[in-house]
Amino acid sequence: MALTPYQQLEQEFRRLHAFRGAASLLRWDAAVMMPRGSASVRGEQLAALDSECHTLLTSPRLSRLIERAQAMEGQLEDWQLANLREMRRERDRAIATPISLVTRLARATAVAEVRWLEAKQESNFELFAPHLEEVVALTRDKAQVLSQALGIAPYDALIDGFSPGFLSAEIDQLFRALSRRLPELIREAIELQSSRPPLPLAGKVSPSKQRTLAVEVMRALGFPFDRGRLDGSDHPSTEGVNGDVRVTTRFVPTEPFTGLMGALHETGQALYDLGLPEEWRDQPVGRDRGMALEESQSLLLEMIIGRSRPFLTYLRPLLEKHFGVTGPEWEVDNLYRTLIRVRRSATRVVADELTFPVHILLRFELEKLIFDGKLRVRDLPAAWSEGLDERLGLRPANDAEGCLQDVHWAVGSFGYFPSYVLGGLIAAQLYETLRGDLSDFDAEIAAGRFGALIGWLRENVHRVGASLSSQQLIERATGKKLSAAPWLRYAEGKYLEEEGDRG
Amino acid sequence: MALTPYQQLEQEFRRLHAFRGAASLLRWDAAVMMPRGSASVRGEQLAALDSECHTLLTSPRLSRLIERAQAMEGQLEDWQLANLREMRRERDRAIATPISLVTRLARATAVAEVRWLEAKQESNFELFAPHLEEVVALTRDKAQVLSQALGIAPYDALIDGFSPGFLSAEIDQLFRALSRRLPELIREAIELQSSRPPLPLAGKVSPSKQRTLAVEVMRALGFPFDRGRLDGSDHPSTEGVNGDVRVTTRFVPTEPFTGLMGALHETGQALYDLGLPEEWRDQPVGRDRGMALEESQSLLLEMIIGRSRPFLTYLRPLLEKHFGVTGPEWEVDNLYRTLIRVRRSATRVVADELTFPVHILLRFELEKLIFDGKLRVRDLPAAWSEGLDERLGLRPANDAEGCLQDVHWAVGSFGYFPSYVLGGLIAAQLYETLRGDLSDFDAEIAAGRFGALIGWLRENVHRVGASLSSQQLIERATGKKLSAAPWLRYAEGKYLEEEGDRG
Repeated sequence: MALTPYQQLEQEFRRLHAFRGAASLLRWDAAVMMPRGSASVRGEQLAALDSECHTLLTSPRLSRLIERAQAMEGQLEDWQLANLREMRRERDRAIATPISLVTRLARATAVAEVRWLEAKQESNFELFAPHLEEVVALTRDKAQVLSQALGIAPYDALIDGFSPGFLSAEIDQLFRALSRRLPELIREAIELQSSRPPLPLAGKVSPSKQRTLAVEVMRALGFPFDRGRLDGSDHPSTEGVNGDVRVTTRFVPTEPFTGLMGALHETGQALYDLGLPEEWRDQPVGRDRGMALEESQSLLLEMIIGRSRPFLTYLRPLLEKHFGVTGPEWEVDNLYRTLIRVRRSATRVVADELTFPVHILLRFELEKLIFDGKLRVRDLPAAWSEGLDERLGLRPANDAEGCLQDVHWAVGSFGYFPSYVLGGLIAAQLYETLRGDLSDFDAEIAAGRFGALIGWLRENVHRVGASLSSQQLIERATGKKLSAAPWLRYAEGKYLEEEGDRG
Repeated sequence: MALTPYQQLEQEFRRLHAFRGAASLLRWDAAVMMPRGSASVRGEQLAALDSECHTLLTSPRLSRLIERAQAMEGQLEDWQLANLREMRRERDRAIATPISLVTRLARATAVAEVRWLEAKQESNFELFAPHLEEVVALTRDKAQVLSQALGIAPYDALIDGFSPGFLSAEIDQLFRALSRRLPELIREAIELQSSRPPLPLAGKVSPSKQRTLAVEVMRALGFPFDRGRLDGSDHPSTEGVNGDVRVTTRFVPTEPFTGLMGALHETGQALYDLGLPEEWRDQPVGRDRGMALEESQSLLLEMIIGRSRPFLTYLRPLLEKHFGVTGPEWEVDNLYRTLIRVRRSATRVVADELTFPVHILLRFELEKLIFDGKLRVRDLPAAWSEGLDERLGLRPANDAEGCLQDVHWAVGSFGYFPSYVLGGLIAAQLYETLRGDLSDFDAEIAAGRFGALIGWLRENVHRVGASLSSQQLIERATGKKLSAAPWLRYAEGKYLEEEGDRG
């Protein structure tokens, strides 16, 4: 029997899924296993796979099939319709960006990334500026063509590539609510915490012991080690596909929690991937709903659950078991104080839960200004310093600690930063709802029973896949539109808690 | 400037090379890293890459480019002409085997492999027979279409897929020479060795110590660990591409040499890959010259060099250093006796250098009979038992130890077995020549200086790539056509050496 146009489309996207899965595994291997000298060979393999995916999405045959499937929409079920919509979305974005532009951007960012690293090492923005200018110019071209194809503003078209459905106007509004409260909240939290600083955690813990602990915690959270792995790498990441998920984290002997917190972060994303609807796993509608949602799952586990008293109650005996540590500094209360310590710093990646959004808000504002041509690339260091001082009351010591600290812009990831904070807001809103839905929540976590939590997330987030928009998903799960209020309530409760408030 | 047809072909084959490199890395990962439960996901990825390669090779565009490039052959250099010939070869083979046949074979062998394992575990050939019959029927179809396309006999067309250029008539002649001498040679060797059996090597050596030793030896041989790795796996293998070579071997705590000898075997192939002409590394002419030549490089290192007194002289202090072993049983003479011990056995994979070819000769004869319809699949167990008894004077205890021992036929690899013995013959002929060319050969090996040996192989074998036929390559390197005489001279010298012969 001949396949319908829609069924033929599913076949094509199955191939696409296989290529992307292969590419993801190659990236994992590059981070964890690959010998130093093999980077260029790997680059060729990844470029060949990427270009194959682009060719597939932009082929006239695929577009013909989409048209024919649309003409027969009446015969499709809801999930098939949603799948067709996501197919179209991918096709539209691919067709809008001609391969010549993709290639020029790939080349420019490859050079810019190298120059960025050199400039950062020498703390000299001048070395990087011309390359960033080129990347900005090309990214603007890309945003322009995408804007025309998608019928949204150029910068929104970039955001849409990371977190589908979010527009900068909505983000502006959410971020304004944060801006109004954050500086004062940070001040109050630091003042409160300064009255009783935590005891320091001394000593070293070998990466292999840290890994064993992380594996036990991940297993308790439901990570299936028969269809996934945990390894060490320079940067935490989640690669692979549903059915073979590869989590990595960074183990540092002098930092007993860096590896575990990285693993929790990535496990949040991994469980999202694993909870996606199995029957759609190789189709666009079976994919996650983008960076903001992914980040929400990561932050919920790492920040909200992982840095909570109930979780640390569960963790304490495991620390004794695997790290062999005891003493007052390893008691729940001290661990909690340690892990929620608020500190002003110029560096995003070491920032805590309260100051982290400030770093993002600054980047969001600056990249919009650069994009609109209101800020010249060469004026970035000054604007950065100014903006950080205004928001956090400190200035970077130099360019390396300032506008050269992140790789994102060098590789053309404009529109990416907001997803970090959107993820935090979504996480808090989901958390507020699920705490209401689930009974004995804290007691369950303290006992290391995560089944109800993960079950709720699977039901309300994971198994939705990409069948709803981000906003629909959030509203269906929480009964409300996304707002900053739950996050602010959560943050105030956690960071302004008085000694006597403890239950 | 527009690319010539030939240059466009190079571009297409560069893509093919990238896809195949990606697939090879995925196979390595499946053997070394992949979680148990992820096999089906990996299968989908590999199938997508394979089918992409087939599509690329059979596209009308590629054939048009080949025709146009051939019309302009006058403008091509020698290596370009050889490259074009190899491109055509790959295209011809791919076009001859329609995707429907490829798919049916893939499906049939996937099932047959599972049934083969079950049948082997239960030692019951009946369970496997119908599946083998189907694989044989489909492989015969494949051989038929390839035969027509290549203008050679069907079975030769299968051999050609593994060891290009070898025909069964030539192999028959070579194998007859072996058959005439081997049974007697084995008898004499066993008798001679029985007069002074080696002292047993007791104790266990951890895989990590074995790996450290293997790494030191591989480094001495010139294996570049900045562009390659060594890992443990169930079956030794060499995967990856020139620029990122992944060697695996099997480490068994109770067998101190299994891991090292496997590593030597694979290093032979890896150094071949690494020595292929760099400027052609992503083109057909830059590939190795097939299984027989590959096996020659493996056997030269594992069997001829690795099981020699000079090599063991180099190895002895390393064993003491890494394994902490001393005593008379770890002296060169005893190690040598241990490693060249000849024993009759029904099992190919544990066979020694002398009895191994007997196992291959049997398989070669049987698969030709099956292929010609002169032996029915159901009569295989009896014919196997008969043939082994005739050649080696023993019979398998059951089917598992008999005709179910190898996976090759289950996965459709007919025409593969001869390459093992061809590889041994080529290795011996190369060895005879290079010993004549290089001065102080034994002293160099005993000192752990492998530069001259590897340099000779690079010059005479590796850097030839696929620019010559197998026969041309051998004749150019050794001045003679391939014959069994050098192997027989080598084997007689090694296995019939009297005590007094030692230099």
